[in-house]
Amino acid sequence: MAVYTDIAEDELRAFLSNYDLGELLSYKGIAEGVENSNFLLHTSKASYILTLYEQRVDADDLPFFIGLMEHLSGSDVIAPEPVRNKGGTALGHLAGRPAAIVTFLEGMWPRKAKASHCFAVGETMARLHAATSDFKMVRENALTVPGWRPLFDGAKDRADSVVPGLRSELELALKTFEGNWPSHLPRGTIHADLFPDNVFFLSGELSGLIDFYFACTDLLAYDLAICLNAWCFEPDNAFNITKGKALIDGYQSVRPLSDEEKEHLPLLAQGAALRFLLTRLIDWLNVPAGALVVPKDPKEYLAKLRFHRSITHASAYGLELKS
Amino acid sequence: MAVYTDIAEDELRAFLSNYDLGELLSYKGIAEGVENSNFLLHTSKASYILTLYEQRVDADDLPFFIGLMEHLSGSDVIAPEPVRNKGGTALGHLAGRPAAIVTFLEGMWPRKAKASHCFAVGETMARLHAATSDFKMVRENALTVPGWRPLFDGAKDRADSVVPGLRSELELALKTFEGNWPSHLPRGTIHADLFPDNVFFLSGELSGLIDFYFACTDLLAYDLAICLNAWCFEPDNAFNITKGKALIDGYQSVRPLSDEEKEHLPLLAQGAALRFLLTRLIDWLNVPAGALVVPKDPKEYLAKLRFHRSITHASAYGLELKS
Repeated sequence: MAVYTDIAEDELRAFLSNYDLGELLSYKGIAEGVENSNFLLHTSKASYILTLYEQRVDADDLPFFIGLMEHLSGSDVIAPEPVRNKGGTALGHLAGRPAAIVTFLEGMWPRKAKASHCFAVGETMARLHAATSDFKMVRENALTVPGWRPLFDGAKDRADSVVPGLRSELELALKTFEGNWPSHLPRGTIHADLFPDNVFFLSGELSGLIDFYFACTDLLAYDLAICLNAWCFEPDNAFNITKGKALIDGYQSVRPLSDEEKEHLPLLAQGAALRFLLTRLIDWLNVPAGALVVPKDPKEYLAKLRFHRSITHASAYGLELKS
Repeated sequence: MAVYTDIAEDELRAFLSNYDLGELLSYKGIAEGVENSNFLLHTSKASYILTLYEQRVDADDLPFFIGLMEHLSGSDVIAPEPVRNKGGTALGHLAGRPAAIVTFLEGMWPRKAKASHCFAVGETMARLHAATSDFKMVRENALTVPGWRPLFDGAKDRADSVVPGLRSELELALKTFEGNWPSHLPRGTIHADLFPDNVFFLSGELSGLIDFYFACTDLLAYDLAICLNAWCFEPDNAFNITKGKALIDGYQSVRPLSDEEKEHLPLLAQGAALRFLLTRLIDWLNVPAGALVVPKDPKEYLAKLRFHRSITHASAYGLELKS
């Protein structure tokens, strides 16, 4: 949950006077998004989300995120649509921060994902990859292999305090990826953070994707690998092959994976596990003593990393390989 | 801000199936209220607030709070209206907690209150007092004079670490109130927490009051004393007599104060300052080291207490006394 900045009504009204959104009726800080401050606006026209971009987001990346959502608004992938102000731009400034308004998407994220949700996520992710094949903007992924080493360096001295032997296990994993990452696989625009709380459903149908603030240009199959981690494990960290198969089947119903992508899926899934393990480890080690916000346990992703390392090919995810 | 409990969609749907609110479209945890978890619901009918009552609220008090809001729904005071379920009751159970749904009030609380806001608050508070004159339920105020001593006892040993000499200053104040509290003044139902964030405005008009979870049966003029503290001081803790006069004029435009109420207003305002000083002091002393939520500074209310002690009669608030 995130509301880091409050807004005075006067400054919000001044900001909104440059938009054509009708009369402001209410605004509430909402517990959504981790990096930014989000407000749900009711106006006489409709509901909107107002986002203030906090320090963890690089302002130089905002045109990419906004441009991506604008690109999707003309596609079959439902995403928040940036609202342009009277000057024709969607990116403004409010309360000392970059700010944008997007349309509000009804829908609820699944607290207990089922295989049917996984199929829909795979399908929509593939449609996202297809719909952005002509999206011209590029944003390198700051959180892929070259970005992991500095994260590791920031955590390694205390890693063993979380799990004995973690430092050498991470060091070994890093070296594996640094030498073997399949960077030649098909690339494009990926969401890169398609966790359940970023996917809305209404009446059993996927009704929209939100939170494009980790989106970047990277391996398409890596997006799928992130979702294998985020959607297909049970609370006890056991892999659910029914969900894995549903996710991959959904994806392939729109965009079939190449043989090379299939072959590398276990390695990509290991990498995705390491990426979230490292950022969670950093947060875990740097939380102030007694803080009211409990960081997510990095050990969850250590268990996932070990699972992906234990399998020999992608059939363990439910993927049907050619014999 | 407060979202302590998340809700799974399944359990929310099961809960809502007992209501006639149309189809659930979305629900968002919102940063509103301090004691409870609040969600903004969109359904195919309208917007609603769902509140889960957390541990700091005594479940035995809930029928009073719900009953009060129901009583007000037939009055000229705009407040959230409890929604009754198909069984005819407004109080249910969700996610292991007592829960209630109330109508959503559009409007925004004033981050920078002006005298015109103060007049409207005084006027509406007096209407609240008038509208509840026939409200039969009673809830003793746990946070009036007899409740202050235990708070003081819980804080006294460390009080001087916040402000040198604070312990003896509070001890002296407590003794003053314990001997001289004007308990014979007119009593009734009071809001008891009518701070700016509980009062909504739309287009300059007061559009509703929220958060009745400190409401109780106590001295009517004490409610006004709380608002003198909450609305009429500047950020540097200087009293703004223009706002004080507006608040009292607004109140008296509906319910004129008796001479005795006027006479005792400085003492009541001291008591109100002490009440918030004590609860803030407890929170201040008990915040975990490094916590991300910064408690409100108790020194603000020490400054207010000293101001009220310094004045000789209520004309210092802008009240016109008979000569």
